[in-house]
Amino acid sequence: MAISVDTFFLNPDAQGTLQAQIQEMIAEGILSGRFRVGEKLPSSRKLAAHLGISRITVTLAYTELLANDYLTSRGRSGYFVSDNAPVPPSYTPQQKSGDAMDWGKVLARSFTGGDTPRKPQDWREYRYPFIYGQADASLFDHANWRLCALRALGQKDFAALANDYFDQDDPLLIEYIARHTLPRRGITARPEEILITLGAQNALWITCQLLLNRRRRAAVEDPAYYTLRDQVVQTRCQVDCIPVDEGGLPPEQISEDTDVIFCTPSHQSPTTFTMPMERRKQLLRRASEIDAVIVEDDYEFEMSFLGAPSPSLKSLDSEGRVIYAGSFSKSLFPGLRLGYLVGSEPFIRQARALRASVLRHPPGHVQRTVAYFLSLGHYDAQIRRTAKVLHDRRAVIEDAIRKHGLTIAGVGNFGGSSLWMRAPDGVDATTVAERLKEKSVIIEPGAPFFGAEHRQQNYYRLGYSSIPATRIEAGLALIAKALKQG
Amino acid sequence: MAISVDTFFLNPDAQGTLQAQIQEMIAEGILSGRFRVGEKLPSSRKLAAHLGISRITVTLAYTELLANDYLTSRGRSGYFVSDNAPVPPSYTPQQKSGDAMDWGKVLARSFTGGDTPRKPQDWREYRYPFIYGQADASLFDHANWRLCALRALGQKDFAALANDYFDQDDPLLIEYIARHTLPRRGITARPEEILITLGAQNALWITCQLLLNRRRRAAVEDPAYYTLRDQVVQTRCQVDCIPVDEGGLPPEQISEDTDVIFCTPSHQSPTTFTMPMERRKQLLRRASEIDAVIVEDDYEFEMSFLGAPSPSLKSLDSEGRVIYAGSFSKSLFPGLRLGYLVGSEPFIRQARALRASVLRHPPGHVQRTVAYFLSLGHYDAQIRRTAKVLHDRRAVIEDAIRKHGLTIAGVGNFGGSSLWMRAPDGVDATTVAERLKEKSVIIEPGAPFFGAEHRQQNYYRLGYSSIPATRIEAGLALIAKALKQG
Repeated sequence: MAISVDTFFLNPDAQGTLQAQIQEMIAEGILSGRFRVGEKLPSSRKLAAHLGISRITVTLAYTELLANDYLTSRGRSGYFVSDNAPVPPSYTPQQKSGDAMDWGKVLARSFTGGDTPRKPQDWREYRYPFIYGQADASLFDHANWRLCALRALGQKDFAALANDYFDQDDPLLIEYIARHTLPRRGITARPEEILITLGAQNALWITCQLLLNRRRRAAVEDPAYYTLRDQVVQTRCQVDCIPVDEGGLPPEQISEDTDVIFCTPSHQSPTTFTMPMERRKQLLRRASEIDAVIVEDDYEFEMSFLGAPSPSLKSLDSEGRVIYAGSFSKSLFPGLRLGYLVGSEPFIRQARALRASVLRHPPGHVQRTVAYFLSLGHYDAQIRRTAKVLHDRRAVIEDAIRKHGLTIAGVGNFGGSSLWMRAPDGVDATTVAERLKEKSVIIEPGAPFFGAEHRQQNYYRLGYSSIPATRIEAGLALIAKALKQG
Repeated sequence: MAISVDTFFLNPDAQGTLQAQIQEMIAEGILSGRFRVGEKLPSSRKLAAHLGISRITVTLAYTELLANDYLTSRGRSGYFVSDNAPVPPSYTPQQKSGDAMDWGKVLARSFTGGDTPRKPQDWREYRYPFIYGQADASLFDHANWRLCALRALGQKDFAALANDYFDQDDPLLIEYIARHTLPRRGITARPEEILITLGAQNALWITCQLLLNRRRRAAVEDPAYYTLRDQVVQTRCQVDCIPVDEGGLPPEQISEDTDVIFCTPSHQSPTTFTMPMERRKQLLRRASEIDAVIVEDDYEFEMSFLGAPSPSLKSLDSEGRVIYAGSFSKSLFPGLRLGYLVGSEPFIRQARALRASVLRHPPGHVQRTVAYFLSLGHYDAQIRRTAKVLHDRRAVIEDAIRKHGLTIAGVGNFGGSSLWMRAPDGVDATTVAERLKEKSVIIEPGAPFFGAEHRQQNYYRLGYSSIPATRIEAGLALIAKALKQG
């Protein structure tokens, strides 16, 4: 690769001769790792013309660098970064620009911290990854996805997708969701009541921003998906973390000055309990009574392989009180980042304006690819295949759990891709999880799911969406052993 | 297409017989436009099994709908939505769920309104689209883009890209930006000092959220990119709109209690003035004096076809005081939604945490495709080709402007893809723009660029990135005529 002449600038304030400046620029490029061994430098003629200096100055600088072994010359082909050039420190270039700023003072807000844990990026290297919410590449219909992406990359589609959508969505995708996806959850919605988001997480974030501020009160399930709780906390509202039971969120525990209720009725996250029909109605009545909005996260609704799915809470809503969040990232692959919000038109109008300000719209090509994947039936086939495999793994993992005497804390009748587990009292699952990593086992400690008030240390989550059935038993044996050591 | 059995639910509270319920469900599906003419209904056996009712109930319901012409029967092939079925109103289904909510009260904040205008989505239908910031599909290297996307869709990449990146970016893209893109702007940055965003707009939004709140003060150029001003205003900070002159933002006008300075030194948006080197240094000194952060939007830096680009403001920054926003959406196509932020590590760390909360990360496949397009050299070729075409168009448009006696308000020496124009005093460019639409001409009224205090009505912007050179003169003739009518 040739080094572009455009990377060279003369600094009018620089100390020293022009020749020295050029030498420094090149040495700095090599030391910082920007110029690499074997890369070709611009010809002296070209660089001299670019900088508006005489060619001899450049030639002298090159000759000097040659002598110092930064460069090597290959006769007429020109100058190259030498094999013997000083090796840059592993990507820590000499910082020209210092940092004189007091960032603690300059930053108006902090978003680090919170309960959301950092997960291991290298989880694929582990032999027993009981990790949740990651893709199992072996289950994904990669061939048809590629064909759909190709179709969306075709000349005709491309012209449309390259467009700035301003605040709009791909009409093909919206139509499919309205006509096919939502009816399966018992929901009827017009295009004006649907917004495409960058995953369900983005949908929930938008909802928090629109409905909460420091004068509002939110009810969140406890335990709950930690990132949602972080999003709620970031709005600085009052947060009630309400312990769930075997029916999910208990409506009578919701205080009457609550403005927004967040819940996961299909199967509670992380306990997997499904909210019975009677309680759903109670919840809607309670929300109506206290005039609160309900936000329903219907994550993984397609994975109800243990029983027929109950219709969504939104489908029972006759007042426009429920805002519904769905996702394609979970059922396809998480790197996709595509989900949607369904709600009353005035709400969606504001959500669209907020999204437009934050990021305009999700990339057009991604939306169109999903629209094709859905409308050609590949999505449904994928879901059926995945559900079948997860169903099989579920049987294997339940057997292994019984065999090794472990305890399931949440026995759901829904399905899904994880189990909520309880270790003996006094066991710190976070410590155990750390120790298990050395045995190539990943489990997810349960503590971050709990609000600070009721934080419990002896719970953990076992995901089975990324581990082959054949490894489950051996992995559980290691977990059982580690738990015994406490 | 067959209607899936999954879209049918029985409501345990429904009035009437089971047969009536089924009839209603189907009629509602047809009336709402969900079930379309010619679509096949589930067999009576299948639907009965799904709902757990007797098959004769379903058959009776179907027979009734047949009589009412909702359905038609094709002997053994089953039941279909009839050609004579009632036509749904154009996508306004009977709303089962009313809206009993007082959204004005429920919504904690409003994001509609603001200065950002709605642009015509159908601008491609216009013969003379002097629109700014849209893609000219004829200039784009679609073939190589498709190859890069295909490569990123390959089995090996796909496994990596389907991953949840949590808060990380594609390392390939980051490396290219650090080694090749930023050095061309005179900037040295480590990976920890770079964050990929959903376009430059998303980069600026993140910056506003991190640096501003109601106790802070921001300086914004006047006129300026309206969406940026909206983003700043949404933080509820104090906003000073500072009139620019031929050197861009005048540093001495920045009040000493300013916390954040937003600017576009390469060529001011929308006036296109380039900030001279001397003023850049003054600006940095002023910021240092009052301890303010500078946010540099280096939009379109690749399009400096009228002269060599000056290094970025960030490249002169020795204190870590400048935050730099760049974009690939402008130089490739706006539907791409990909940009980046460069700043001190503590700032980028917070920006990463905020982005993770809002949307986790930009889609992996989009990042990788751009990384390939860049590293295979297609991007540079694309830039050169585009700059050449824009240069030619610029000559044509300047000629036509002289010929028709129009006035350029901002004579930049940079290049870019637009001209900032002044109509005679008293002319309302917004009205003229509306009238011109009837002649198939799009111009962009200038009023939304100005802060409320100094709003001027007789400016407009002429973009030349989407109009073929051959149509420029005829379009300008129409503009000149419309301006004469005032």
